[in-house]
Amino acid sequence: MAQQKKRVEDITPMEEDFGKWYTDIVKKAELMDYSSVKGCMVIEPYGYAIWENMQHDLDARFKAVGVQNVYMPMFIPESLFLKEKEHVEGFAPEVAWVTQGGDEPLTDRLLVRPTSEVLFCEHYQKVIHSYRDLPKLYNQWCSVVRWEKTVRPFLRSTEFLWQEGHTMHETAEEAEAFTLKMLHVYADFYRDVLAIPAVIGKKTEKEKFAGAVATYTIEPMMHNGVALQGGTTHFFGDGFPTAFGITFTGRDNTLKHPYETSWGVSTRMIGAVIMVHGDNNGLALPPRVAPVQVVIVPVAQHKPGVLEKAGEITAALGQKFRVKLDDSDNSPGWKYAQYEMQGVPIRLELGPRDIENGQCVLVRRDTGEKTTVALDDLEGAIAQLLDDIHQNMYNRALENLRSKTFEAHDYEEFLEIARDKPGFIKAMWCGDPACEDKIKEDTGGVKSRCIPFEEEHLGDVCACCGKPAKHMVVWGRQY
Amino acid sequence: MAQQKKRVEDITPMEEDFGKWYTDIVKKAELMDYSSVKGCMVIEPYGYAIWENMQHDLDARFKAVGVQNVYMPMFIPESLFLKEKEHVEGFAPEVAWVTQGGDEPLTDRLLVRPTSEVLFCEHYQKVIHSYRDLPKLYNQWCSVVRWEKTVRPFLRSTEFLWQEGHTMHETAEEAEAFTLKMLHVYADFYRDVLAIPAVIGKKTEKEKFAGAVATYTIEPMMHNGVALQGGTTHFFGDGFPTAFGITFTGRDNTLKHPYETSWGVSTRMIGAVIMVHGDNNGLALPPRVAPVQVVIVPVAQHKPGVLEKAGEITAALGQKFRVKLDDSDNSPGWKYAQYEMQGVPIRLELGPRDIENGQCVLVRRDTGEKTTVALDDLEGAIAQLLDDIHQNMYNRALENLRSKTFEAHDYEEFLEIARDKPGFIKAMWCGDPACEDKIKEDTGGVKSRCIPFEEEHLGDVCACCGKPAKHMVVWGRQY
Repeated sequence: MAQQKKRVEDITPMEEDFGKWYTDIVKKAELMDYSSVKGCMVIEPYGYAIWENMQHDLDARFKAVGVQNVYMPMFIPESLFLKEKEHVEGFAPEVAWVTQGGDEPLTDRLLVRPTSEVLFCEHYQKVIHSYRDLPKLYNQWCSVVRWEKTVRPFLRSTEFLWQEGHTMHETAEEAEAFTLKMLHVYADFYRDVLAIPAVIGKKTEKEKFAGAVATYTIEPMMHNGVALQGGTTHFFGDGFPTAFGITFTGRDNTLKHPYETSWGVSTRMIGAVIMVHGDNNGLALPPRVAPVQVVIVPVAQHKPGVLEKAGEITAALGQKFRVKLDDSDNSPGWKYAQYEMQGVPIRLELGPRDIENGQCVLVRRDTGEKTTVALDDLEGAIAQLLDDIHQNMYNRALENLRSKTFEAHDYEEFLEIARDKPGFIKAMWCGDPACEDKIKEDTGGVKSRCIPFEEEHLGDVCACCGKPAKHMVVWGRQY
Repeated sequence: MAQQKKRVEDITPMEEDFGKWYTDIVKKAELMDYSSVKGCMVIEPYGYAIWENMQHDLDARFKAVGVQNVYMPMFIPESLFLKEKEHVEGFAPEVAWVTQGGDEPLTDRLLVRPTSEVLFCEHYQKVIHSYRDLPKLYNQWCSVVRWEKTVRPFLRSTEFLWQEGHTMHETAEEAEAFTLKMLHVYADFYRDVLAIPAVIGKKTEKEKFAGAVATYTIEPMMHNGVALQGGTTHFFGDGFPTAFGITFTGRDNTLKHPYETSWGVSTRMIGAVIMVHGDNNGLALPPRVAPVQVVIVPVAQHKPGVLEKAGEITAALGQKFRVKLDDSDNSPGWKYAQYEMQGVPIRLELGPRDIENGQCVLVRRDTGEKTTVALDDLEGAIAQLLDDIHQNMYNRALENLRSKTFEAHDYEEFLEIARDKPGFIKAMWCGDPACEDKIKEDTGGVKSRCIPFEEEHLGDVCACCGKPAKHMVVWGRQY
């Protein structure tokens, strides 16, 4: 880790080239590296530690609502995959095919899972018999493969890590309610852990998942006004259960199909964290997923007692927080820049004079603000500061989302905003996919994000075609 | 979960057919299910929860010695795989080949990782420059694929879950020491968490990993006297680093190759737990990996106050242990058999009279012993009992290992033991792989398990050929 490789000056300013700023951060913060496998990433320790913190928190939230983890095979036989037609059409063009095992060519080719609906359904068909077996609330953490033509670190790659929940319920109402419950689990996680606000709502027919009856979504806005689909939950009705012959004996003693949901979030969330919170000094990590919450940088560390005291503080704080002591030979100035670039929420500076005075200096990553804190009060001060940083990061992101959300009342206004103002556009819509197509074409990529749960009445007619409006839609470009 | 599916009577006694006993437990305890994908398993919630507990404990042990988690792609380009010759020869016959991505046939075929040495090496080549970058101690938790012809749940399957650590070191000595350190991490985990004793030592040249300089192993004995390779660690020397052009500038300012190790354990450990601890009543889980440590079974639960008290106790114990309350309509007798079959370490029975007397009954899975405990002392009693159960399970497994380990001083004796007495055979060996071949052929499958660290002197000559002996070897059949 040669020192010269890591200067902040190497990060392209986001105003100059947002895409380059993003990949600069990914590389310089050592989050991931490319491999020689087309479209596949190596997630490096610092990036993987962020993912582990996300997993750990989300997994506990899943378990709290009764979800159980399982593991399904990574392969799907072609014959099994072909059982649900819309689903096949959605995924077939972008899958990797295993055609040979050992020395033998396969008669039934295997696809590497792009998603595992069919495997869960095959298993559920065997284990669901009675209403007493429902609900079944299974989830798996795994990687999936989609043969992508263009690749961006964490945002779009041939292989990525995710979780996929697939559940079966006795009634359509229960399944729909669970679909919304999981959406709120995601929204809470985004808000309370990632410090990311989002528009949440229902996808239009055109944008819903292949094979789903309804898709719900979390749509956070990146710093540049572009949306990232942050997580989706799907109500499937009984289409897959019917196709896979999943039946159960109901309370009324008749045979029925259960109702299905699925829901997932992926390593894209790391991309969202970078693009919502990062700045021209590098990454800025929300405290609750930061691999290092407090970095301790000794000043004049060769002076007697400095390293000893720094070690003591590291050990004490390490009981409650994720703490790193950097006692390397690099200069304090280099260390400041390095951990700022890696987005560590709090830097703790400790020099001989601080020790004499029984104090240290805390520097916030989000604002740069410095405060001097008595060593006796350190634990409480850091706990409070981490919460403050989280809240401030959330507020800033919310301010960005609000200030870059515009209203369009007619098509001229819509096109003007789409052309001049990066961000979201709120506009009324008639419900016709033809208007979605037209908007996408006329704007070069603006799509409906969702029909938000918090709909507003901005007029009576569709901003695109002028026919009577059915919904307010939030529109925007996306990653 | 129809009641009749779960009767203990459905488990084949182990004395009658050990293999069938094993698969009966796997299925009836709902650990895994077959899928329509040849050789691939569905790990069900109860089985996966055991794996999660194993992962959680092991991962903390890895991190305590400085290991960092990463994620490498699941695909390896054929051209990259071909770089290390011995390694290729070891794995090529048993890999799955991806030959098509989306609509395009691939020019460089991809293999689904059977193990990831080459991907780690490719990455290390980019990030290792100076001795200051060493050691690099990376690990990943993932699934790997080996195209197996015969399959046994958890023991041998086309896809399985594991962790693979791959590390780079400045010197051969440091790498060898780390190889042994990780072996001891595994051995400690087997002893302290899985309650499984094992013979540990070094593999012979013939049995070592493809491409390794030395392979070390943990060899626990299953209840029927058959070995299971429980975990291996490999010292690779600088073969891969040389093949992949990994170099660093040393302390003496010259360019060197680092030295490599790798080490892994897999979902086979679940198979080991079943076959070491299980009995004719089903699974018996060591308390530290049991998904449910204490199951609470209310007796006469319709009587006033019983379910309320059971709920209170569940909530209180749930703070410290993994607890499940079964307040379903099934009879207490059915529940007793069910949780005994699922290997729950402690059953807590609570009825109206118990509540009156401020007490409850604890029943151990390992011995069936019942004790009456005051509700006020419950937490301490359970903590102690879980430790006692762990220790007793370890002692019993150790007794099984000892009583089924025999000494052979000449070849006649060796063949006689191999024929009549299931278990391990300790015998002197000349060091010639020809004797290993001969023994395997003459006995129909007995192989060298390892040269144990605790070697004994049983004579001066090889038990097979009579030439001067170099080592004592532990021999045995294996899964």
